[in-house]
Amino acid sequence: MTKKGLKIATIGGGSSYTPEIIEGFINRHHELPVKEIWLVDIEEGREKLEIVGNLAKRMVEKAGVDCEIKLTLDRREALKDADFVTTQFRVGLLDARIRDEKIPLRYNCIGQETTGAGGFAKALRTIPVILDICKDMEELCPDAWLVNFTNPSGIITETVLKHTNIKVVGLCNVPILMHMIAAQVLEADKDDVLVHFAGLNHLVWGRKIYYKGKDVTRKVVEKLADGVNFTAKNIPDMGWVKEHLLDLNMLPCPYHRYFYLTDKMLKEEIEAAKTEGTRGEVVKKVEAELFELYKDPNLAEKPKQLEQRGGQYYSDAACELINAIYNDKRIIMPVNVQNNGAISDLPEDVAVETSCVITKHGPMPLNTGHVETKIRGLMQVVKAYEEMTVEAAVTGDYNRALQALTMNPLVTDSEIAKKMLDDIIRENIEYLPQFKKYYEENLK
Amino acid sequence: MTKKGLKIATIGGGSSYTPEIIEGFINRHHELPVKEIWLVDIEEGREKLEIVGNLAKRMVEKAGVDCEIKLTLDRREALKDADFVTTQFRVGLLDARIRDEKIPLRYNCIGQETTGAGGFAKALRTIPVILDICKDMEELCPDAWLVNFTNPSGIITETVLKHTNIKVVGLCNVPILMHMIAAQVLEADKDDVLVHFAGLNHLVWGRKIYYKGKDVTRKVVEKLADGVNFTAKNIPDMGWVKEHLLDLNMLPCPYHRYFYLTDKMLKEEIEAAKTEGTRGEVVKKVEAELFELYKDPNLAEKPKQLEQRGGQYYSDAACELINAIYNDKRIIMPVNVQNNGAISDLPEDVAVETSCVITKHGPMPLNTGHVETKIRGLMQVVKAYEEMTVEAAVTGDYNRALQALTMNPLVTDSEIAKKMLDDIIRENIEYLPQFKKYYEENLK
Amino acid sequence: MTKKGLKIATIGGGSSYTPEIIEGFINRHHELPVKEIWLVDIEEGREKLEIVGNLAKRMVEKAGVDCEIKLTLDRREALKDADFVTTQFRVGLLDARIRDEKIPLRYNCIGQETTGAGGFAKALRTIPVILDICKDMEELCPDAWLVNFTNPSGIITETVLKHTNIKVVGLCNVPILMHMIAAQVLEADKDDVLVHFAGLNHLVWGRKIYYKGKDVTRKVVEKLADGVNFTAKNIPDMGWVKEHLLDLNMLPCPYHRYFYLTDKMLKEEIEAAKTEGTRGEVVKKVEAELFELYKDPNLAEKPKQLEQRGGQYYSDAACELINAIYNDKRIIMPVNVQNNGAISDLPEDVAVETSCVITKHGPMPLNTGHVETKIRGLMQVVKAYEEMTVEAAVTGDYNRALQALTMNPLVTDSEIAKKMLDDIIRENIEYLPQFKKYYEENLK
Amino acid sequence: MTKKGLKIATIGGGSSYTPEIIEGFINRHHELPVKEIWLVDIEEGREKLEIVGNLAKRMVEKAGVDCEIKLTLDRREALKDADFVTTQFRVGLLDARIRDEKIPLRYNCIGQETTGAGGFAKALRTIPVILDICKDMEELCPDAWLVNFTNPSGIITETVLKHTNIKVVGLCNVPILMHMIAAQVLEADKDDVLVHFAGLNHLVWGRKIYYKGKDVTRKVVEKLADGVNFTAKNIPDMGWVKEHLLDLNMLPCPYHRYFYLTDKMLKEEIEAAKTEGTRGEVVKKVEAELFELYKDPNLAEKPKQLEQRGGQYYSDAACELINAIYNDKRIIMPVNVQNNGAISDLPEDVAVETSCVITKHGPMPLNTGHVETKIRGLMQVVKAYEEMTVEAAVTGDYNRALQALTMNPLVTDSEIAKKMLDDIIRENIEYLPQFKKYYEENLK
Repeated sequence: MTKKGLKIATIGGGSSYTPEIIEGFINRHHELPVKEIWLVDIEEGREKLEIVGNLAKRMVEKAGVDCEIKLTLDRREALKDADFVTTQFRVGLLDARIRDEKIPLRYNCIGQETTGAGGFAKALRTIPVILDICKDMEELCPDAWLVNFTNPSGIITETVLKHTNIKVVGLCNVPILMHMIAAQVLEADKDDVLVHFAGLNHLVWGRKIYYKGKDVTRKVVEKLADGVNFTAKNIPDMGWVKEHLLDLNMLPCPYHRYFYLTDKMLKEEIEAAKTEGTRGEVVKKVEAELFELYKDPNLAEKPKQLEQRGGQYYSDAACELINAIYNDKRIIMPVNVQNNGAISDLPEDVAVETSCVITKHGPMPLNTGHVETKIRGLMQVVKAYEEMTVEAAVTGDYNRALQALTMNPLVTDSEIAKKMLDDIIRENIEYLPQFKKYYEENLK
Repeated sequence: MTKKGLKIATIGGGSSYTPEIIEGFINRHHELPVKEIWLVDIEEGREKLEIVGNLAKRMVEKAGVDCEIKLTLDRREALKDADFVTTQFRVGLLDARIRDEKIPLRYNCIGQETTGAGGFAKALRTIPVILDICKDMEELCPDAWLVNFTNPSGIITETVLKHTNIKVVGLCNVPILMHMIAAQVLEADKDDVLVHFAGLNHLVWGRKIYYKGKDVTRKVVEKLADGVNFTAKNIPDMGWVKEHLLDLNMLPCPYHRYFYLTDKMLKEEIEAAKTEGTRGEVVKKVEAELFELYKDPNLAEKPKQLEQRGGQYYSDAACELINAIYNDKRIIMPVNVQNNGAISDLPEDVAVETSCVITKHGPMPLNTGHVETKIRGLMQVVKAYEEMTVEAAVTGDYNRALQALTMNPLVTDSEIAKKMLDDIIRENIEYLPQFKKYYEENLK
Repeated sequence: MTKKGLKIATIGGGSSYTPEIIEGFINRHHELPVKEIWLVDIEEGREKLEIVGNLAKRMVEKAGVDCEIKLTLDRREALKDADFVTTQFRVGLLDARIRDEKIPLRYNCIGQETTGAGGFAKALRTIPVILDICKDMEELCPDAWLVNFTNPSGIITETVLKHTNIKVVGLCNVPILMHMIAAQVLEADKDDVLVHFAGLNHLVWGRKIYYKGKDVTRKVVEKLADGVNFTAKNIPDMGWVKEHLLDLNMLPCPYHRYFYLTDKMLKEEIEAAKTEGTRGEVVKKVEAELFELYKDPNLAEKPKQLEQRGGQYYSDAACELINAIYNDKRIIMPVNVQNNGAISDLPEDVAVETSCVITKHGPMPLNTGHVETKIRGLMQVVKAYEEMTVEAAVTGDYNRALQALTMNPLVTDSEIAKKMLDDIIRENIEYLPQFKKYYEENLK
Repeated sequence: MTKKGLKIATIGGGSSYTPEIIEGFINRHHELPVKEIWLVDIEEGREKLEIVGNLAKRMVEKAGVDCEIKLTLDRREALKDADFVTTQFRVGLLDARIRDEKIPLRYNCIGQETTGAGGFAKALRTIPVILDICKDMEELCPDAWLVNFTNPSGIITETVLKHTNIKVVGLCNVPILMHMIAAQVLEADKDDVLVHFAGLNHLVWGRKIYYKGKDVTRKVVEKLADGVNFTAKNIPDMGWVKEHLLDLNMLPCPYHRYFYLTDKMLKEEIEAAKTEGTRGEVVKKVEAELFELYKDPNLAEKPKQLEQRGGQYYSDAACELINAIYNDKRIIMPVNVQNNGAISDLPEDVAVETSCVITKHGPMPLNTGHVETKIRGLMQVVKAYEEMTVEAAVTGDYNRALQALTMNPLVTDSEIAKKMLDDIIRENIEYLPQFKKYYEENLK
């Protein structure tokens, strides 16, 4: 890495999350010498980029740190010699997200932007773009780390692992929240609690929880089963089935509700769609308000309201990860990496979300071995779906895409999958170059 | 095995299928010297045992083979020194089956007696009985082969493998039908076609189809995708989604429809339940008619009408298997055995349904290695469900049972699973000694 | 396969074994319609080819079967449209074998033509040739089966599996002899005995022996431990250490003596080299005598004396295999195939020697799962050596070759390996095009 | 752990290494509140215990730390409520070691106290004692960590893992030395270098070496191949075969010389045995001198001369490990733990030596996945030998012991193994209760 200071390129720099990542770098500036942060966006995002970019500039200035914020629509300029590239872009913007949420609901299936058919659609749109970015990186900054938090993060990470030469870490705030919750439940300091995570992105389990050298997993589970509140901001709180949780005997992640409480979640979604709107619709309003706030020339710090947005800690986690790599901190952090045998029940070449030691060389996964039968099946079927999704998105093979979608446990069956897939392709065709030919010949 | 001739004990001897197994032994008598067939049943089945037992006697007599039919309610007498034990019993009779079909429908889930929540209920009832039978066998005929075709055959076989010392083979007619269908599609002689099967009972795929040394899998799949009729008697014919089948590129089994065409199957079931009744209710009528036929003292052969019953070839397959073991025939036959690494994607100690060479020593599985990603996930999640079901049924652990049922892909989620589980326990309590305590304390 | 009859191409057709393969085809002619047998050899083997070829012609004529024997030095003509290709060639002829035996002895290591450093040298010479043959086959007879019995058969088979598109089966007479010995020990008919083999070529164990459905492994082992003679013609009979064999509790192969009785074997070899000559030198004399016999224009059958040669049943096994494939016989036969998970303790892409069902589609391995710890380590270390040998022989990488040779358990260490490797390259350079450059620069 | 301070029990407290462990605790006293160190020994070691124990007392006093040294022959008193138990005992004392070194030399095999037949003999003697200690621990301090550095450390650790309920970490100074050497070669600070270790105790490879985020493995290997000195004190420096090391492309451990340079090592040992004596004989003299030094009432620190002893850093590593556990330091340290899939090429229940993160909960292994073929075979065959050795030592099964010893790559073959085994049993019979019966009946 450059001795004179680090260059960060943030793809999707016009995101409402940007103040958090800027704050993260400011807070770590004493040990993490970031000299340039390039916020990149596309033409459609120019306005938002300028608003949030100017806020970023004010933040840096106010903090008095030696770091330049650059705004650009030229991705290649931003990537050139970058040390770290973070990705927080959203292909098709929030309107695409709203479609991802609504198409499945038409067929009485969970509509969610990262899991289920919605996440599948998002993957189809995102994969051509991430491959493009990586192609640029291979040319312009081949040694840079790609810190991805564009969702579906596990699928995107797996795509990069399988189809590019770029060093990648997939990041998610979910296990960070789970760690916090475990500490809260234990009324303990976060640093005294060690959660050994294993699973997939948005399907990760806290398999073992330790407090000061004792395995306290049972204690945490019992407290949760007794109704301690356990949820993330963007997911309604509804409680696990007590007996189910007690048998599970580990920490499920908030997204497990789509699988363990499908019916209730689906009803909630249908109701919400009819009333306050889908999560995407709500977020769209929140974002509009946030950008109004961001415009205020007197604002020079991350506003409190950003925490309503849902993805908090995401950007901070990215800064923490970058710091841990840069300073060889060897902290234990759950991230998405190549499995390579860490979880014995999954193929070696796939992405898993698991506790890693973060070193200067990158994340080194702790070994998990075999997981419990009770979580094994779900983890395996979702991973198989993800593998097939990567394949379908890369090749643009319609039949393979249908197979992938059918395999998703939140999709009823192959007939419904076919209807949803056709809707997804039709309504996203401008973002799906790989399915253009099929669309022209069959769906137009 | 006894030099003087073989002793067969058939548990559930009063079944309407009995004429088929008797016919199977008669047809093979020239090389398979069965001297005694003990038809065992319980008090509740006494009448049917006598009816079908007398038919069996007439059949044997008419065929002129040297074989004695014995009818008994004393299982231990029947098992004593038996060479082969076949199981075709049904705990709770057809009324229990009808309940198994109806309880899931209350919650908008597939109601089927072998797969889904219905199969789960059947497993809970059957496992205590099969363990009892095996305990008797360990004492009275420890070297005998148990040829199980009581459903859910894979789960029952796994229970015997894990919890007893009895040599067991689980049998199913489904792959036999699939083999026949493949031959029909190819317009070829059955013996020229080799189907390499792998998967689980009622979730088995014909992964490779060979005809005279050529891999003709694609050809068969394309014909099926073009609508060649492919179904078993007891499952409505409704056709696969063409693109899905083409991507699958192997032979699904008829029961895959519950997974690949869930919605259509569920609607069919709901409609049927309202009109002609569930499959169990239909079968009950068919059985009543069959037993009327069986009473005819002039009838001395298997009546044609038995083929309407649905499980044809089951009993014949049992005879074929016994014959292959006895005569060391080394034919290739798909049966349920311990995995032991044959399918690399599943644990070693579970039951799998896979092509085996049948030798005097028992079935030796052909190696499969890894299966394709597109079928791997479903196979793994169903197997995980099955493993947990065995555990729950053996221990009577309610929370574990809830976990198992939640894991079943045909069960919506944990809340619905809990409701179904409570119904299952309440309505089957006389057959569920292992859940008695829980019932008394929580559900009464 | 051609309807008008089969075309066989035998590479190394001038071998003294040829009469056995001819006899094998004659004996099976009623069901295996071989119409042409092309005996191919190279210029140096022209004389032997003519002698043995003419004997072959007389044999066929005497037997009155409709089959033409063709002699040629043009390999491509022989391969064109062949149905089966058998390989029994020896690069460098017996003189190379004698060198393979003698070089290791210089360094006090086992000198044997298939195992140890001798087998390594043979692999380096043979691999460029087999790759050439396969390249021709890919062009001239891409659907033909390659039935290899050129040693080291496992390494050669693995090379073909990894580096060509040719369908290959590696054959060895050793397990056939072991099966016979097991039957002899049991005083049983060979067909009543089933030996389940697993391991590597010349390192195969008969892990389970069944007689009429009973596991009689212990019985056979105890008889062998009590001194029943158990050996092949080309390996001195010296008896296992009784306690070792009893713990092993399975059938070792004759070549295991190089590993289990290394010291005694080495002393024997050193003594033999000083007196009657190495095995290669003895064989050279036997061959000379055989060819004298073969010249006799009155000889029209395989002479008894061929049985002294050592490799008996090899060629007959080839005919049996070809017959089983052609007629879809589904017999169980131990052959060398891709592992693909059949033996869980070895990589998937390597060649293993294991019991297979022989079908029209080729051999389908029976599943083994994990082997016993007591044989696992040796099997794994030898396989790792074999994998590295294939790599070294294909690439001509000297350092890799040194690594491979050092890994061989019959080679003392890396310093001695280096000396031997240098000798091997120097003395075989005309057959080692892949090491030419290294030789020119370092060893000349 | 006790709030009031830690209790350490050191079995074999009379060892000459004791001053190092005392120094280790003194140096860490500011963060590791050790209040009691119980030095335990047996009657035969009473004198040495008193000498070294008194030195320990003087060291603690001089350092002015609040820690009591207790000397005892009552192991149970020492174990009672201990927080950590360290084991550095030697069954049979140095005389037994000398026998372990000499018996193999009689048969022209490597004679070394941890690897080869010598290590095997040591394992047979040590295992009954360690099992006894663990039985006491299960009763008296079931939550204590056992930090074992009695050799053969991997085998002893595996025994504890498989046959007791005690939490164990096996420790070795070898990877610590390798890490130091790597840093020296790189002329870098030790803390900037990360070596990812994998393998077995005394057969561990530094597979990847990182310096400030770069993989510098090749650089280190090339320097070593060019002759940079690389060795431990107790192993003669003789240099690897350059081409071998270059292909290996990782860091071998000093003990690899017994495998990679067997012949040279054997010759060295034979020569040494004739002249200055075996390593054990040399150490015996060094120890005598050390104890003379220790007697000096003015000595109150670890004398420099202890570094000649060979096992330096061992005891310090133990203190470092205990400190890391106690303070949840999460440093990366290579130790011996249960594999559980960390190294995909080895069974799950065996001990491996691999880089772990040391947490309050104990060591959590970093994942390795599959290792390179070039090291896989040796690692696997030695592990298989170790597994069988544990089994033989626990059961006292002579045939199994013979099998184990035959499997050791440093033992020529089964005949020689038998002779050595008989010598080992005869000459160690007072320490081999498990082989008493066999000895009485067969060897007396």
